Amino acid sequence: MDPKLGRMASWVLAPLLLLQGGMLSASPPAPGLLGRIFRHIDLHQDAFVRTLSEWVAVKSDSIQPLPCFRQEILKMMGLAADELRRLGARVDSVDMGVQQMPDGQSLPIPPVVLAELGHDPAKPTVCFYGHLDVQPAHKEDGWLADPYTLTEVDGKLYGRGATDNKGPVLAWLNAVSTFRALEQDLPVNIKFIIEGMEEAGSIALEELVEKEKQRFFSGVDYIVMSDNLWISRRRPALVYGTRGNSYFTVEVKCRDQDFHSGTFGGILHEPMADLVALLGSLVDSSGRILIPEIYDDVAPLTEEERKKYEVIDLDLEEYQKSIQVERFLFDTKEEILMHLWRYPSLSIHGIEGAFDDPGAKTVIPGRVVGKFSIRLVPHMDMSVVEKQVKQHLEGIFSKRNSSNQMTVSMTLGIHPWIADITDHQYIAAKRAIKTVFGTEPDMIRDGSTIPIAKVFQDTLQKSVMMLPLGAVDDGEHSQNEKINRWNYIEGSKLFAAFFLEMAKLHYNNSLPNQS
Amino acid sequence: MDPKLGRMASWVLAPLLLLQGGMLSASPPAPGLLGRIFRHIDLHQDAFVRTLSEWVAVKSDSIQPLPCFRQEILKMMGLAADELRRLGARVDSVDMGVQQMPDGQSLPIPPVVLAELGHDPAKPTVCFYGHLDVQPAHKEDGWLADPYTLTEVDGKLYGRGATDNKGPVLAWLNAVSTFRALEQDLPVNIKFIIEGMEEAGSIALEELVEKEKQRFFSGVDYIVMSDNLWISRRRPALVYGTRGNSYFTVEVKCRDQDFHSGTFGGILHEPMADLVALLGSLVDSSGRILIPEIYDDVAPLTEEERKKYEVIDLDLEEYQKSIQVERFLFDTKEEILMHLWRYPSLSIHGIEGAFDDPGAKTVIPGRVVGKFSIRLVPHMDMSVVEKQVKQHLEGIFSKRNSSNQMTVSMTLGIHPWIADITDHQYIAAKRAIKTVFGTEPDMIRDGSTIPIAKVFQDTLQKSVMMLPLGAVDDGEHSQNEKINRWNYIEGSKLFAAFFLEMAKLHYNNSLPNQS
Repeated sequence: MDPKLGRMASWVLAPLLLLQGGMLSASPPAPGLLGRIFRHIDLHQDAFVRTLSEWVAVKSDSIQPLPCFRQEILKMMGLAADELRRLGARVDSVDMGVQQMPDGQSLPIPPVVLAELGHDPAKPTVCFYGHLDVQPAHKEDGWLADPYTLTEVDGKLYGRGATDNKGPVLAWLNAVSTFRALEQDLPVNIKFIIEGMEEAGSIALEELVEKEKQRFFSGVDYIVMSDNLWISRRRPALVYGTRGNSYFTVEVKCRDQDFHSGTFGGILHEPMADLVALLGSLVDSSGRILIPEIYDDVAPLTEEERKKYEVIDLDLEEYQKSIQVERFLFDTKEEILMHLWRYPSLSIHGIEGAFDDPGAKTVIPGRVVGKFSIRLVPHMDMSVVEKQVKQHLEGIFSKRNSSNQMTVSMTLGIHPWIADITDHQYIAAKRAIKTVFGTEPDMIRDGSTIPIAKVFQDTLQKSVMMLPLGAVDDGEHSQNEKINRWNYIEGSKLFAAFFLEMAKLHYNNSLPNQS
Repeated sequence: MDPKLGRMASWVLAPLLLLQGGMLSASPPAPGLLGRIFRHIDLHQDAFVRTLSEWVAVKSDSIQPLPCFRQEILKMMGLAADELRRLGARVDSVDMGVQQMPDGQSLPIPPVVLAELGHDPAKPTVCFYGHLDVQPAHKEDGWLADPYTLTEVDGKLYGRGATDNKGPVLAWLNAVSTFRALEQDLPVNIKFIIEGMEEAGSIALEELVEKEKQRFFSGVDYIVMSDNLWISRRRPALVYGTRGNSYFTVEVKCRDQDFHSGTFGGILHEPMADLVALLGSLVDSSGRILIPEIYDDVAPLTEEERKKYEVIDLDLEEYQKSIQVERFLFDTKEEILMHLWRYPSLSIHGIEGAFDDPGAKTVIPGRVVGKFSIRLVPHMDMSVVEKQVKQHLEGIFSKRNSSNQMTVSMTLGIHPWIADITDHQYIAAKRAIKTVFGTEPDMIRDGSTIPIAKVFQDTLQKSVMMLPLGAVDDGEHSQNEKINRWNYIEGSKLFAAFFLEMAKLHYNNSLPNQS
């Protein structure tokens, strides 16, 4: 579907669908409201893009543990709090204390923004989670423009954080501000929990959710987040599961100083040789993880589950083309989806301490740290994986008879998550998607990790849903990350439609209870 | 020997040895001249250290191909030219043109300084080669102080370039300036060739030597350089051989953009997995290079050669302690020396394009470049090695059935070099060492590569000698590079004594010819 066509479709379809919808919520909206909402969003789209541009300009990198970046995240959280206040929300910026770094320095953890809009007991309460920190980005890594200057080319809005996750957070705010602009009551109570440390593992957030369980979260019925992507460039999706992640570092140290490779090459147990052997023992060329017993706890595949992958609308050829990959490890759609969603994977991210600049430095690095992570799936246990990895690497290292010291650490561990897709909010979201995009969503999982999903589910015992806005080729975490203007604007409409559908379901559902 | 004791010894020994020396050169110095020279150098040592401090402050990094660093090298070459002019030399700064970088930009190649002091046909002409560019250095790599601020702690002068090669170049100038200050004729004609691109492979220098063969180099009898280290902390050395070097890059590319390891981990041929397997196939845990046939051309070891290693005064335990290494690949002195000097070695330097910052980025790098080099020994052939490496890596890669693209390049190639140690200048240097340090030198090779040695030998057909000043623990190319104040000051004396010994040998040698 051509994006322009998609946008036209929403203009045309919206009023029709509204007519079918009838009375929609506890506080039913005026007929034609959705049409007015959509027109308002379309007319104000340039202002919405301008705000996104302001937010992208803030270098809220939570990965590089430097005070200057932490200041940027603080600034970012302040902008979000201001915007929420402007929309009439009651806003708390919760102090999260400090983070002790391995090198002894301590860094502030940015405040978490908790905000509330409405507390009508007749309405359902939806809590939206989002994050405003980003992955590192440097122009010289291969960005076509400054990563912190939102740059529009052919309807694509390029910038770090555009799709992950500043754009989707703003789309939610755009939806709210449209109700405000049209002087309409919000059909649902909305709470916001917005953090600034997601990319760094949502440090201290779990404790906050636990602490606020009886207060901030007490009235919450549903939790929604929009921190992932569709599986297609054009067809929306709903996400009901994510993989977890165990992030490992393996340090090999001879001494703190580097060596000259001419003066000392030939007589040393070189740390890089050890590290390359260690990293090379982790995964084979078919993508299979070589750590003994690592697959033992992976949920067995049932025939019923296998069928779920068959109905997903994934054009493999187009998918491959859209991400510019020559050939995948697997040939069928089903294998591809299963290896992204329900099997673990191991990726080697890089090496700290070795020579990484351009040019030809003749150095034997004295101390190097390899980094890799394993995406976890049901029913893998993080602490079992940690033991398996350590045992495996220690075995490989001891066979080398090296005089260096090796240290393996699991620096981050996040559980996988699976939702029940018969929950109300999944039904409401499907209807809203049909209204805005004129199609059923793909029901998908996400191979990536959204740590807080499992925390919300376990701590609050409430339904969690992921309602993504971004297209499959948005390039989150990579160079030239973008969100399409179309996705950003239609996504803002989607959230507005979702509010109305939630209210409608709640209203219909509450009638029998009252009778 | 305690360094302080060593310095006292030179004070005491110098006049005694002078008395034994008698008439020393074509233009014989006044008796006691050497004693006056040594006293002058001792009295002016703080000024000599100040100049070194000024030179170290110039960030003349030739490895990082950035215009700002090239400007620093230009500044450095200007300082050297000024200093040589101040000493009365005729100085040429030879324009070397521009360097085309792989990314399309062009960078200026710093001028080479050619300088001449004296042209008395009755004196021998010694040409000194040195370089004033340095390896990269960043405080955050583990330097205790700013690498470009010369910092003295316990008689150690820390700073990038202090020992490699700014200190030794200045020691030579200190020797000359002492003759000037004492209003003494230089006992030899001296020429200087000083470059600013040694660490980057002495780009375009070979062509310059060829071009200047009949002009600048026409009267040169001997070539001396001081661009390596002793094998001990206290005992001086003379170097008669160096290994060559073949520097390789191996690029593995899926696409230019990186991937999110959650979104795509499990279905890609990840470039890092390929690269780690390629790098892991190069060398085993005993240091043996695994590239087939690579040892075929290495000169066989004779019993006579083996004996040379036995007499080297190397205290293995102290050597190990001085460089803070837990255990070497080999247990005996002879094996250690042979594996540093007469066998090839392979070092893996690092990876460009992967995640190398602190923290935990969940990225699948899209394009990575591994860097490694092989130190070459007689009689390995660079072009044969290039073929062997490429064939080996192509074999490993093709077995992986990866959809990525691999490109192997030899980006630098430098021949090994071996000298004839019965040449006059080796004899003169031995005598000067005995005078200043009261000991015979270790006759050693250097495992590292001084590209220009082989060029001088082949192009000019003149004897090349390496007369190092720095101690084994100077840490050239590594963090906290230093030169001991003692080495720097005694080294300045050594060069002055060497001038006198050269003149004496020349004078004695020329007498029979005239009879």
